[in-house]
Amino acid sequence: MTNLPVRTAFFISDGTGITSETLGHSLLAQFPEVRFRQVRIPFVDDLDKAIDCAQQIREAAQRDGVRPIVFSTLVNPLTVDGLRQADALFIDLFEQFVGPLETELGQRSTHAVGRFHGIADSSDYKNRIEAINFAMAHDDGVSSDGELAEADVILVGVSRSGKTPTSLYLAMQFGVKAANYPLIPEDFERNKLPGELHHYRAKLFGLTISPERLSQIRQERRPNSRYASLENCRYEIDAAQKLMRRENIRWLDSTTKSIEEISATILQAVRLNRPGY
Amino acid sequence: MTNLPVRTAFFISDGTGITSETLGHSLLAQFPEVRFRQVRIPFVDDLDKAIDCAQQIREAAQRDGVRPIVFSTLVNPLTVDGLRQADALFIDLFEQFVGPLETELGQRSTHAVGRFHGIADSSDYKNRIEAINFAMAHDDGVSSDGELAEADVILVGVSRSGKTPTSLYLAMQFGVKAANYPLIPEDFERNKLPGELHHYRAKLFGLTISPERLSQIRQERRPNSRYASLENCRYEIDAAQKLMRRENIRWLDSTTKSIEEISATILQAVRLNRPGY
Repeated sequence: MTNLPVRTAFFISDGTGITSETLGHSLLAQFPEVRFRQVRIPFVDDLDKAIDCAQQIREAAQRDGVRPIVFSTLVNPLTVDGLRQADALFIDLFEQFVGPLETELGQRSTHAVGRFHGIADSSDYKNRIEAINFAMAHDDGVSSDGELAEADVILVGVSRSGKTPTSLYLAMQFGVKAANYPLIPEDFERNKLPGELHHYRAKLFGLTISPERLSQIRQERRPNSRYASLENCRYEIDAAQKLMRRENIRWLDSTTKSIEEISATILQAVRLNRPGY
Repeated sequence: MTNLPVRTAFFISDGTGITSETLGHSLLAQFPEVRFRQVRIPFVDDLDKAIDCAQQIREAAQRDGVRPIVFSTLVNPLTVDGLRQADALFIDLFEQFVGPLETELGQRSTHAVGRFHGIADSSDYKNRIEAINFAMAHDDGVSSDGELAEADVILVGVSRSGKTPTSLYLAMQFGVKAANYPLIPEDFERNKLPGELHHYRAKLFGLTISPERLSQIRQERRPNSRYASLENCRYEIDAAQKLMRRENIRWLDSTTKSIEEISATILQAVRLNRPGY
């Protein structure tokens, strides 16, 4: 890694910077040969702050010996001008795309600063917060009778197969109410789904994982336990897959997938069954 | 709302679609006068799927009486061609920006499909998952002695001031380990910080909220309780702010802020104290 070239990439925004960072990460991921030092600067909402950014860009250029890449989402022309006092490759979301959208929609954009401005009052946002609370309250099989009726999706799988982070991501990104339910050795012995899950078969989605990866993850939490042993992980995964197959539960293997990929896949599967979701 | 024009906006991607959706939401938020019907189509990674998308675009155009807006992040020229068989305003991240980046960096992009391809193995990703587990294990004051030493930030505030969703967002988006600790009436009576928090003053960040909003949120959970009464909310907020002021804890008001805004603000505050974060 050490002899890769280094470039500084700035993510600059008048809001949280999350859009410019998401945009920037996607684009930089297309250049794995370049090592990027990443600097996030949110809330650049006046000229002074923009000029301060320009100074940081100049300093980075001097340190790297090459001009930085700047991903920005600035709507105020004054702050844009301030920023551009420095030399960099500027990649600006609004500059490129707002013009064509204005023409297409036959409307001027509001040039409102900050993507999330006012979003805290929107119903989308409230749904997301409610979904986060739901995921927290229904994590790891903690659900009273009837409460699962409210869930959009119920994740099942052995302990540490990725259910909790996936539930939270589904809530946070998409406002989807996800409960999760562990499959434990007692379920395999009884050879049936735990709790009241059989009432909600259409909402169930399974996660599986390779026994090797599972054992590795469990080792970090309970080193040298029977719980973490490869032998036990093999047994649990095999039994869980048999159970899911018999119960006709859709599932996917989380071994090499990110929670973003798992969530998008689940959403697509759930949505196919419920048009208009 | 009903007489606003309706347009269909598609978010189409060969990966999860999260980048194109983030991009699209930011841009559409600049046109609050237009009502958008939003359709997300992830994993469009071959020509057949692209042609199917083109068909959906045509159907939306027919239904709306106006061509849709399509936000896409497709790297494969073949799928791009398939998609373009339909008429729409195409806004493509890669098309616009990959060219200038290739020139600037003197490298060809990999044209690797899917932003998150391979990300599950990266150390950034592992940090995020670890941070999510940390936030879950240290929610609502559940921390044993010494465990808080591992936290990057510790959120404090009265019950329902926004600590839990913010902790989770900090973990998920930024890989920041955030614990949270409620300030409860006993703390105000004893007139000191709860638990072992006094050891970690530099990591503390407070959330406050308007008593009216707090009462409204608590009403939804425990209607007509003393806990939710405006009078009690006023008392708790006043006492919490006095305590935070006396203990010199930075804080912000979450009343009209999204967890994105709160998280970006906290990160900036924490980072200022710990350069190189």
